[in-house]
Amino acid sequence: MAAKRTSRPSKPRVLLVGASGTLGKALRRALGRRYEVIAASRSGKHHVDITDSASIRRLFAAVGTVDAIACAAGSAHFAPLGEMTAASFDVGLRSKLMGQVNLALIGCEHLVDGGSITLISGILAEQPIRTGSSASMVNGAIEAFVRAAAIELPRGIRINAVSPNVFVESWPEYGPYFNGFEPVPVARAALAFVRSIDGGQSGQVYKVW
Amino acid sequence: MAAKRTSRPSKPRVLLVGASGTLGKALRRALGRRYEVIAASRSGKHHVDITDSASIRRLFAAVGTVDAIACAAGSAHFAPLGEMTAASFDVGLRSKLMGQVNLALIGCEHLVDGGSITLISGILAEQPIRTGSSASMVNGAIEAFVRAAAIELPRGIRINAVSPNVFVESWPEYGPYFNGFEPVPVARAALAFVRSIDGGQSGQVYKVW
Repeated sequence: MAAKRTSRPSKPRVLLVGASGTLGKALRRALGRRYEVIAASRSGKHHVDITDSASIRRLFAAVGTVDAIACAAGSAHFAPLGEMTAASFDVGLRSKLMGQVNLALIGCEHLVDGGSITLISGILAEQPIRTGSSASMVNGAIEAFVRAAAIELPRGIRINAVSPNVFVESWPEYGPYFNGFEPVPVARAALAFVRSIDGGQSGQVYKVW
Repeated sequence: MAAKRTSRPSKPRVLLVGASGTLGKALRRALGRRYEVIAASRSGKHHVDITDSASIRRLFAAVGTVDAIACAAGSAHFAPLGEMTAASFDVGLRSKLMGQVNLALIGCEHLVDGGSITLISGILAEQPIRTGSSASMVNGAIEAFVRAAAIELPRGIRINAVSPNVFVESWPEYGPYFNGFEPVPVARAALAFVRSIDGGQSGQVYKVW
């Protein structure tokens, strides 16, 4: 029996990873207007630790197929270059870089045809700050990965990155490290995620600065 | 007693890591005209495995202070994106990325004031090929690291990267993966290393394409 014409089509489902941070909360607001947002974070109902592939797999087993994946998660260690060790660089490589890459690769299997993946990089990929060598490295890696993965993803699946400047909302905490940078409202970064999900492009880095 | 005015000044010393590969051999020729080249590779007199920090430290203990470090070493795993695992990405992260980064950080302690470090990235950072997602990631990471490290290195030490296209000399082996790319003579990439070492810039990516 055909569905009634009057029934409203269900909203596209977006899995939002890193939903509890400054950007994550803004994304819940921005995406919630048009999508069913499934909010995942290190705590809460949909728990995920992106540094652990098994945790990512459990998340998708619970969530099922989605139309889009948006990631606002991942950390890196900040310290003067002279104090950085292989272990300090490893934090960013395992979390913000490979955490997001594994989320994309595993998530790909749980996306609809033509679905999209949006990862988070950041201005430090191009405009460094002191103590930020690991974040720069990781952001540059994510952006290059997105360009490369875009030409190999199957079934019309797209992948992009959003590269924001420091947020107005994070200025009290991070401002001292970003003297001379122009902070942007986190809502602008959230808009770039919407553009990535709703637009047709792939392999792009949407700069919010 | 003052040195005789007629004595010729000793040539600046360049530690060349990855001296036995296609690029390494071209660098020996190009740098040998003006520098004393200390050739290190995975075999030979000056042995080094850049994935092993202890090996890098032993190299510098044997070589002593140098005026410049040039790296033409580091590998990454090539495979279709759908076959890439965390372990396959780890090859490039440990070798071409962190191998070079550790060489730079440890090497910094053994460079003269105003010395220079030149790392190798590659065109895949910006122009991807199928099977190259790890190489793209790693090259993008190196370039962003170089920009960031440049503003924190002490004692006027500089750091740059050279990003070559595929080499004419490597075309028989790699050509099938680079259809439509314009291969460049490896001697052009070697010239870019000379420019990095002799020029005054830091935090640059010299594209050879």
